[in-house]
Amino acid sequence: MSQEKFVAAARFNVRYAETDAMGIVHHASYIVWFEEGRSHYMRARGSSYADFERSGFYIAVTDVSARYLKAAVYDNPILVRCWLSEVRSRTMAFEYEVLHEHTGDLFVTGITRHICLDKEGRIARVPAQWASWLKSEG
Amino acid sequence: MSQEKFVAAARFNVRYAETDAMGIVHHASYIVWFEEGRSHYMRARGSSYADFERSGFYIAVTDVSARYLKAAVYDNPILVRCWLSEVRSRTMAFEYEVLHEHTGDLFVTGITRHICLDKEGRIARVPAQWASWLKSEG
Amino acid sequence: MSQEKFVAAARFNVRYAETDAMGIVHHASYIVWFEEGRSHYMRARGSSYADFERSGFYIAVTDVSARYLKAAVYDNPILVRCWLSEVRSRTMAFEYEVLHEHTGDLFVTGITRHICLDKEGRIARVPAQWASWLKSEG
Amino acid sequence: MSQEKFVAAARFNVRYAETDAMGIVHHASYIVWFEEGRSHYMRARGSSYADFERSGFYIAVTDVSARYLKAAVYDNPILVRCWLSEVRSRTMAFEYEVLHEHTGDLFVTGITRHICLDKEGRIARVPAQWASWLKSEG
Repeated sequence: MSQEKFVAAARFNVRYAETDAMGIVHHASYIVWFEEGRSHYMRARGSSYADFERSGFYIAVTDVSARYLKAAVYDNPILVRCWLSEVRSRTMAFEYEVLHEHTGDLFVTGITRHICLDKEGRIARVPAQWASWLKSEG
Repeated sequence: MSQEKFVAAARFNVRYAETDAMGIVHHASYIVWFEEGRSHYMRARGSSYADFERSGFYIAVTDVSARYLKAAVYDNPILVRCWLSEVRSRTMAFEYEVLHEHTGDLFVTGITRHICLDKEGRIARVPAQWASWLKSEG
Repeated sequence: MSQEKFVAAARFNVRYAETDAMGIVHHASYIVWFEEGRSHYMRARGSSYADFERSGFYIAVTDVSARYLKAAVYDNPILVRCWLSEVRSRTMAFEYEVLHEHTGDLFVTGITRHICLDKEGRIARVPAQWASWLKSEG
Repeated sequence: MSQEKFVAAARFNVRYAETDAMGIVHHASYIVWFEEGRSHYMRARGSSYADFERSGFYIAVTDVSARYLKAAVYDNPILVRCWLSEVRSRTMAFEYEVLHEHTGDLFVTGITRHICLDKEGRIARVPAQWASWLKSEG
């Protein structure tokens, strides 16, 4: 029987500052929302990226890609669905769907890849906990 | 008997993108949060700034001032308290307190002043509804 | 004999607001720099995206991808090299290299894909001028 | 004979990401430009805020105020005039004018107040060099 992946769903309204002169959400705003999706994923896991940093490590972004399907506008209720899609010894990946909370319209999809760094900027092993997160339902 | 002012309280966590190399929230982020406080004020009033714009008017900012008391950091649970503090025929003002939701620590206070503009950029009268918002408890 | 592609190079210093609590430039800032690279490309071509919009069209982003190689920090002198890499009847693509102006260190590479829209949001043909830009040295 | 104050002038074009759905520059963008004005002030003084931080100190913002007179739009050539207006033992202030580089139209004026902090977040004395900057023409 297949095991469902654990998906965290962050929720907020589009801020006016996130729009641009086309009258829609600026495309870089979604990249910030992906990051908020990752933050929320860790909170939803009962963890915290702030604690992770305090333990002496950072998660750095090595790759971002986003596909823009439909434009969100000011005040839209946004849902950022985020899940861990890959964990290796030294890298991990998250995937995202940004939707209208009520209509379910899909605005943007994306994927980000990451490495762990210690405080001196050296590449570190991804903590074992992350691999367990990939496998379990939460 | 004194009448309490109506205070809307927006709630969110500090985003990583809102921090800077000092390790704290960048001071311009609070100005964006003031705006989100205003958006939330209108939602809490059962109204919507998006609808207001669709009716053919804008609210433009003429003055911003902020006092920075304590630095918020990544992931802090933030409360933006926002209330209407003045409504005249052609101007209005909002005031703000940005706090730590749990400890109540006060990070920043501020005030913004505004005018109403029509689609051609001409100054318009502040809608009567706003004056009623100033007076009533909500 | 091969024809060199036309590369526009925008230049500026990293702003403090563009950094984050890791002490480096936030990864979404580079997406904004790509866009500034495109704006500069049009200025370097003797054109202007502002004029393009006034003529009744928008260029919307459909895809963004970025690879992060090395972290820029506050005040670094940045060079954004930007060139048109593909023009079809209804789509176009730009590519980017973000470098340290003096050392030549490569921070980030990226590609963005675009469509043209008219004021009603309908997909429009890419103006003929763009195809000529792809071919000529400028 | 009166001594002229030293005014640094940063120059750049409005980025698309700095606009909002009103079609104009978002009001928080000017706060970021004030900061870029300060960075440029230090570069124009032959100094560097990056070096200042490396010496173990930060300059924190305690107050910001801005007055919005006219709206800048995408691609406008911007001039940020910035000067030191006050230096005391533990505080300093900068003032700003944001103008259209060619027409001289004044978009925004502002003032920011600051304190010096050491790496532990304790208030430190403003370096003597700053007081000399207040007095001399540069």
